[in-house]
Amino acid sequence: MDFSPSPRAADLRERVAGFLAEHVEPVEAAYHRDLAEARLAGTQWTPLPVIEELKAEARAQGLWNLFLPREHAGEYARRFGTDGGEGLTNVDYAPLAELTGRSAIAPLVLNCNAPDTGNMEVLLRYGTQEQRDTWLEPLLDGRIRSAFTMTEPGVASSDATTMEATAVVDGDEVVINGRKWWSTGVGHPDCAIFVFMGLTDPDADRHHRHTMVLVPRDTPGVRIERLLTTMGYADEPIGHGEVSFTDVRVPVGNILSGPGQAFSIAQGRLGPGRIHHCMRLIGAAEVALEAACRRGLERTAFGKPLVDLGGNRERIAEARIAIEQARLLVLHAAWKLDQGGSANAVSEVSQIKVAVPRMALDVIDMAIQLHGGAGMSDDFPLAMSWVNSRTLRLADGPDEVHRGLVARHELGRYR
Amino acid sequence: MDFSPSPRAADLRERVAGFLAEHVEPVEAAYHRDLAEARLAGTQWTPLPVIEELKAEARAQGLWNLFLPREHAGEYARRFGTDGGEGLTNVDYAPLAELTGRSAIAPLVLNCNAPDTGNMEVLLRYGTQEQRDTWLEPLLDGRIRSAFTMTEPGVASSDATTMEATAVVDGDEVVINGRKWWSTGVGHPDCAIFVFMGLTDPDADRHHRHTMVLVPRDTPGVRIERLLTTMGYADEPIGHGEVSFTDVRVPVGNILSGPGQAFSIAQGRLGPGRIHHCMRLIGAAEVALEAACRRGLERTAFGKPLVDLGGNRERIAEARIAIEQARLLVLHAAWKLDQGGSANAVSEVSQIKVAVPRMALDVIDMAIQLHGGAGMSDDFPLAMSWVNSRTLRLADGPDEVHRGLVARHELGRYR
Amino acid sequence: MDFSPSPRAADLRERVAGFLAEHVEPVEAAYHRDLAEARLAGTQWTPLPVIEELKAEARAQGLWNLFLPREHAGEYARRFGTDGGEGLTNVDYAPLAELTGRSAIAPLVLNCNAPDTGNMEVLLRYGTQEQRDTWLEPLLDGRIRSAFTMTEPGVASSDATTMEATAVVDGDEVVINGRKWWSTGVGHPDCAIFVFMGLTDPDADRHHRHTMVLVPRDTPGVRIERLLTTMGYADEPIGHGEVSFTDVRVPVGNILSGPGQAFSIAQGRLGPGRIHHCMRLIGAAEVALEAACRRGLERTAFGKPLVDLGGNRERIAEARIAIEQARLLVLHAAWKLDQGGSANAVSEVSQIKVAVPRMALDVIDMAIQLHGGAGMSDDFPLAMSWVNSRTLRLADGPDEVHRGLVARHELGRYR
Amino acid sequence: MDFSPSPRAADLRERVAGFLAEHVEPVEAAYHRDLAEARLAGTQWTPLPVIEELKAEARAQGLWNLFLPREHAGEYARRFGTDGGEGLTNVDYAPLAELTGRSAIAPLVLNCNAPDTGNMEVLLRYGTQEQRDTWLEPLLDGRIRSAFTMTEPGVASSDATTMEATAVVDGDEVVINGRKWWSTGVGHPDCAIFVFMGLTDPDADRHHRHTMVLVPRDTPGVRIERLLTTMGYADEPIGHGEVSFTDVRVPVGNILSGPGQAFSIAQGRLGPGRIHHCMRLIGAAEVALEAACRRGLERTAFGKPLVDLGGNRERIAEARIAIEQARLLVLHAAWKLDQGGSANAVSEVSQIKVAVPRMALDVIDMAIQLHGGAGMSDDFPLAMSWVNSRTLRLADGPDEVHRGLVARHELGRYR
Repeated sequence: MDFSPSPRAADLRERVAGFLAEHVEPVEAAYHRDLAEARLAGTQWTPLPVIEELKAEARAQGLWNLFLPREHAGEYARRFGTDGGEGLTNVDYAPLAELTGRSAIAPLVLNCNAPDTGNMEVLLRYGTQEQRDTWLEPLLDGRIRSAFTMTEPGVASSDATTMEATAVVDGDEVVINGRKWWSTGVGHPDCAIFVFMGLTDPDADRHHRHTMVLVPRDTPGVRIERLLTTMGYADEPIGHGEVSFTDVRVPVGNILSGPGQAFSIAQGRLGPGRIHHCMRLIGAAEVALEAACRRGLERTAFGKPLVDLGGNRERIAEARIAIEQARLLVLHAAWKLDQGGSANAVSEVSQIKVAVPRMALDVIDMAIQLHGGAGMSDDFPLAMSWVNSRTLRLADGPDEVHRGLVARHELGRYR
Repeated sequence: MDFSPSPRAADLRERVAGFLAEHVEPVEAAYHRDLAEARLAGTQWTPLPVIEELKAEARAQGLWNLFLPREHAGEYARRFGTDGGEGLTNVDYAPLAELTGRSAIAPLVLNCNAPDTGNMEVLLRYGTQEQRDTWLEPLLDGRIRSAFTMTEPGVASSDATTMEATAVVDGDEVVINGRKWWSTGVGHPDCAIFVFMGLTDPDADRHHRHTMVLVPRDTPGVRIERLLTTMGYADEPIGHGEVSFTDVRVPVGNILSGPGQAFSIAQGRLGPGRIHHCMRLIGAAEVALEAACRRGLERTAFGKPLVDLGGNRERIAEARIAIEQARLLVLHAAWKLDQGGSANAVSEVSQIKVAVPRMALDVIDMAIQLHGGAGMSDDFPLAMSWVNSRTLRLADGPDEVHRGLVARHELGRYR
Repeated sequence: MDFSPSPRAADLRERVAGFLAEHVEPVEAAYHRDLAEARLAGTQWTPLPVIEELKAEARAQGLWNLFLPREHAGEYARRFGTDGGEGLTNVDYAPLAELTGRSAIAPLVLNCNAPDTGNMEVLLRYGTQEQRDTWLEPLLDGRIRSAFTMTEPGVASSDATTMEATAVVDGDEVVINGRKWWSTGVGHPDCAIFVFMGLTDPDADRHHRHTMVLVPRDTPGVRIERLLTTMGYADEPIGHGEVSFTDVRVPVGNILSGPGQAFSIAQGRLGPGRIHHCMRLIGAAEVALEAACRRGLERTAFGKPLVDLGGNRERIAEARIAIEQARLLVLHAAWKLDQGGSANAVSEVSQIKVAVPRMALDVIDMAIQLHGGAGMSDDFPLAMSWVNSRTLRLADGPDEVHRGLVARHELGRYR
Repeated sequence: MDFSPSPRAADLRERVAGFLAEHVEPVEAAYHRDLAEARLAGTQWTPLPVIEELKAEARAQGLWNLFLPREHAGEYARRFGTDGGEGLTNVDYAPLAELTGRSAIAPLVLNCNAPDTGNMEVLLRYGTQEQRDTWLEPLLDGRIRSAFTMTEPGVASSDATTMEATAVVDGDEVVINGRKWWSTGVGHPDCAIFVFMGLTDPDADRHHRHTMVLVPRDTPGVRIERLLTTMGYADEPIGHGEVSFTDVRVPVGNILSGPGQAFSIAQGRLGPGRIHHCMRLIGAAEVALEAACRRGLERTAFGKPLVDLGGNRERIAEARIAIEQARLLVLHAAWKLDQGGSANAVSEVSQIKVAVPRMALDVIDMAIQLHGGAGMSDDFPLAMSWVNSRTLRLADGPDEVHRGLVARHELGRYR
């Protein structure tokens, strides 16, 4: 069990930290202020120019597409990735993902933002050469963005087999119908391609009924019905949308891997993605704990710094303990993934999916409480971070499903 | 310990429930949709006309100013209250407050909305005849609205003695300077009067330094600097504002009760107000539990209704247990208040302030989880309810301060 | 919802409190010391003489069999109960049960000890005149004691229908076979009668298969196999036993209510019993909180009384809040029982069974922690109280079963 | 961060596991039965012969004194340790400690039992040659046992500076007076030597007032006043005692390290000891989780295996998640200790001291609940394990003190 980053990863960590300190942190508050003003002006879905500037700088520094997985990146790592010429292991990328989680915009700036990373990984692993030429390259290049359309409003999407949207093969076309929501990314004007998952063969066995298809956003019949909020946040300019597909037709060449292969693709896609999500939450929790400590030392009430009142120190200690345990658990899952792939880490990945968002919620909530009303406002990143963490108790599978997986694995040892 | 409502209160409960079922619930979803559209159009701070229509209907049914306290309402209960001609006890009003908490707009519609209720109570108890004629009557009449400006951005307002804004007596005027935030209600165009709290005599003892002053909103030097969000919600058209006061001058006749009396007013003001807040949260928790049950029975996954999966039934049971305990605790505090006033219920009021928001957060969070992504959206009232409950772990004193009060009271028995 | 005790109950409360203060508290520490010495001498199963002395005193003061239920006590209340000549309601008895829970020996001393109270109630409600003459009178008189033998070692007794022990009618006899454990009371030399529950007709519907039978302890074939400990405590001289029944024969006249009636008897028996258990735990929690406060004020570390260190005050506040909520919930269940019997309070009784032992465990654990090592020893009643509370998360139905009942009731409102 | 055991440690792990499976597990149930019978016979303080037999076997297999720390063991590792000829690192020993925690007797059998391990380590690091010849050798040889007498009944021992017992240098003797309790090990007939800690110079600075002295048990004036129970367990034949010291005189040569050095010795002593305690608790938690899974699969109620009822699977998953996080946190602390000694791991060691006993309590409590009444009895090791874990929230510093240390360390980063 070795969680040490390679020398190259350690070096990248220094460089990412330096980039964030020098280029991202100084502009982040202004970014949020500008976005708030854009909301008042109704222009919040047009990305602010600073993002493209930061992307250029990140790329110039070789801090670009760091997420590219060693196992599948191949030549793309050399062409579009960072300077080392190959992708990183999960253990190596994890600390970098943590750093990006310290900022609301860093993932975007480093081209390491969900759901694009997951979609790019799918294209790397399952895309044909043509699919990769058409969609992967511009994604890696940061010229376009993508969405993943799977969750549906009418069914319990925690059980993906209940999906009702259809992707029916009709000659050399696939006909797509249905309604999806929580399609993250569809608010962005650069979002050009959707990975759509739908029912193809209801008579096949449970895990071979569904197909993933690449659907360009401008295909006739695709309609963004509305953009959703989580609590009150719309996450502009990324956005989470409800999207309808009405007799949408794309060539069969847009199918990923083959009809009925959606579940096996989804399995492979989600392991690393959950590592990334969880490490980013750890970064967000560290930011919250730091903010709590600073606020608690600076503000006074009843004649003492807040940290010296009541149980505040104990809560700070619990936050540190919780973060350490969570980080180690994610590193452990990353290490298991690196050792033997998704099949080797089914329980471990579900473990982090349960433990880490909960930890982040607790730590951020503590920090909010120490900030008083300010903690609920957008003067600090805490409220938005909390909401983001809360969605991750639902996104990529609700806690309950992941606990079920962990339990099944555990009980399997005694049958 | 008798928590039974009087026959009149029981009758009012039926009537309020009937009013909500007939007039409020049918329009509530449309209200929120219209408000969302108003946000896109930038008109969200103009109250939607349905509110005034509903206010008229409520008043016509005699369901108006139900909050008026028996102890202090006097003639105003007869002139502006409901048909019985006198105010209600806390035990009698509590179940009505619970009902209003089932709806985001009912408190407004029945003229029982914070902070107006607290401000009206202050005017009843401490206002001169002139102050009551000028401000209380239009408030009771629903023609104007009010704000309470106490919390400050620069200090830990959990310790109100740290307050920096000033209210200095200068001849027959009071000169007001400082900055307040989380001033709830200032977003509303009808908000005409602020109850301002500031430092008058820094040399007096801790609890006689501050003064409450009535400041008309349009007094020169008063400026709404911005409206704040709580986790993305701006609570239009009520709003929570940051307000600056620069050399604001009002007549000394605008002082409430007398210079240095702010703390004793605040003490009396907060007991019933906390009962109201807590009972409304219980109403919100009941709505969430009902939604969880319905969703859990209707949606299926893995071949079963959601309620039959994993620990969902146990969580529903825990929610019921938590709600029952919380309601009984609030009724107990209300009964203690009725028996002997605020001084008789210091610990009890702090107990509910700690216990009830936490309970509501847990119950609503469980309901959100059972709703999946929908629970985080505004298609259901859960997300907004959760945020509202979260603010009540800070507003009117953070949990930590209330736990401190409960502990002091407890330990006082053994000294 | 009126939880006020009647004037007679209020008077009894004063008198019970006075009796405990004057007669029980002064001897309690010595009692435990003597019992510890008896353990070293191997005589711990012989009741210490002080108990009989205290029983006599309690009876002389008219504080005897206070548990007798108004609804069923009839003439027995007059003959064996306290001076008022009739039994008490649940609301009236609840505060008395809380007082007895402050002491490990008070329930015994006042003849209000489980399982005798439940067994006496069963005899009152379901016993024939002969059964009552033979067993109820000496129990009410405090001359004999009883046990309830239901739980079995070989099956999950949380589902009572899994019971394997048999009670087969054979002519004018009932033949009893099987093995029971956690039969509380069998360690006591005065324990003369067992209420046995066994399978009579496996072909009847689920709730009419089992029968309750009175089995005198000295019947041939009855054998106390061993006495069990709960976390090291044997609860001498009451004890919890494992008992085997081998071809035990008693007359059919020993059947309670009739063959197949065990479940309906058990339902009626358990409502009040759970109120008693829960109120006693509230008494134990109050004792623990008081001990925590006193210790926290008296002991110093790092230059301060313990209560002024870290989160100790917050924990004391949480304990107070938890106790208040728990007591109110039990009073509510008692009131529902009084209003309409067990059928009216199924959910409410299960609610307290879940909420109260957990509350007691939390409060007592907090007190243990504040006492340091002393809290784990028998120098204070905390450790034993904790263990007693822990068993009540299992006895009379585990938490999980009760949560299931509460959920079923809740969901039933929406079907 | 590399938690991989060395090849030698991996091999030892296999061998310890094999020894436990072959020699310890098969006799463990009988051991506890025999001990229970010894209690009835009053002979429970005489060690059962099987322990010496198992010690001989362990030693024959080279599984002896595995705890010996690489850093300090020197020649003693070669002479008394396992075959490799040197001590183990903390990372290497941790998995072995976990294995020994699976059994109540394994630590004793492998000569790795607290407090002897800590005392031996103190002798290794601070003992003179004569002290080591006289006491360390027979301890390493398993011929004698030892106790550590620090905690006092009259003061809050969480703040060790409050200690009242005295160790006054008088010429070439040290005079010892005072009363200690929770002196673990004093029940054992082989316990021959006490490490005593007392006040020497009240005028020195806080951390140089106390001295550690070796006091042979049979020194005149030493008296075992009584043996204590934790909850109901006396932990025979080890035992926890209250010990009085009355004008006890030993040569100054019995002082460890020097007068006033007690605190610096204690600091060094506790780091590895806490790793050992925590790893043993992880072993105990694994045993509990395994028992819960097996019971949950085997027992049925309401027509299903227990694991398929209500939230049981979710609880099993949470237990797995909690254990994994705890183990990783301990390995992390062990690794930090190995990297830079106690000073490098102050926060980390306190973190595990808070997190691990709590985790073990939760997991074991869950397992108890799944076992029903059996879980509270001594038919399973769960109840005793729970009590043992509970004491570790107090022993070696209560949680509150450790949280304080973690918080101080955390806040120190921002001052």
